[in-house]
Amino acid sequence: MENKRKTIAIDMDGVIADTIAQFIIWYEREHGVLIEKEAFHGVPESEGLPNGAVRKFVYTPGFFRTIPVMEGAREAVLALMKNYDVYIVSAATEFPHSLFEKYEWLQENFPFISWKNIIFCGDKSVIATDYMIDDHVKNLDCHNGSCILFTAGHNIGIDRHTRINNWDEVLELFNNEQI
Amino acid sequence: MENKRKTIAIDMDGVIADTIAQFIIWYEREHGVLIEKEAFHGVPESEGLPNGAVRKFVYTPGFFRTIPVMEGAREAVLALMKNYDVYIVSAATEFPHSLFEKYEWLQENFPFISWKNIIFCGDKSVIATDYMIDDHVKNLDCHNGSCILFTAGHNIGIDRHTRINNWDEVLELFNNEQI
Repeated sequence: MENKRKTIAIDMDGVIADTIAQFIIWYEREHGVLIEKEAFHGVPESEGLPNGAVRKFVYTPGFFRTIPVMEGAREAVLALMKNYDVYIVSAATEFPHSLFEKYEWLQENFPFISWKNIIFCGDKSVIATDYMIDDHVKNLDCHNGSCILFTAGHNIGIDRHTRINNWDEVLELFNNEQI
Repeated sequence: MENKRKTIAIDMDGVIADTIAQFIIWYEREHGVLIEKEAFHGVPESEGLPNGAVRKFVYTPGFFRTIPVMEGAREAVLALMKNYDVYIVSAATEFPHSLFEKYEWLQENFPFISWKNIIFCGDKSVIATDYMIDDHVKNLDCHNGSCILFTAGHNIGIDRHTRINNWDEVLELFNNEQI
């Protein structure tokens, strides 16, 4: 068992999927107003856009299917997979119409992730991996493994988990075995 | 933490969903031949019907949406939820079109299961619950908690896990704290 590969749970929205970029793209398309990403800083994600647009968009078919890939995520996940068993773990059951969209999104953008390594769930408290990379503190707070907080507007100022700001920093962390 | 409720992962197909009954119903509807459920005994599930019909059906839209509920499952799950945190854990990502169907099936037949407690995954090796009830030995073999094998044709003769034959026996097991 000592040679067993370690496991990493990697979140989708806000971590490998640039959901904030998608909110901004959709809002500009619908309202003709370009929102700065700083509008999402220090507020719950649902309050980042005016007029309840965030809640509206996440329930709109197509939203999750076309989210841009987070910069550097594809290359970094591929690199991690050389030494770790990577699971993509997304809290998708809150938005059931997103289930198939998220699957197709992974097929298109991360085709090297097997269906065996995809987990769509609600709360993540029974996901037991050695590491969890997530932007939501609530997911990390109930995780027993090593926690890595991916910076997002809604988690600024929280300092109880190892923080990384981008995928280069994730690779640096794992390459230097700092965790 | 000692008062934390224990968790149970409960499989869908072959455990709360009577997938064999559905195979038989669909085969009779398409071919006019009533297959006995004993045809599934002692063979891999995929070989229970002639002409590769099992593989065909599981990729056909609507198959998972209309599976009959396993006898006694609804009442038993409700009873377990009084004392345990129940998660429905289904290896759904192998059949991506089943994802939304399985969600809707749960909404219809187990409306008391929150989206927070639904997990659609591939392999179940990173699902950490105190108990796992499953008909597939491969899922139980990599589970660290207590394992309960729900009898199915394809697992007959396997004796390395606690076996139960129906939902009454599950309740008896938990009521008597035999595990």
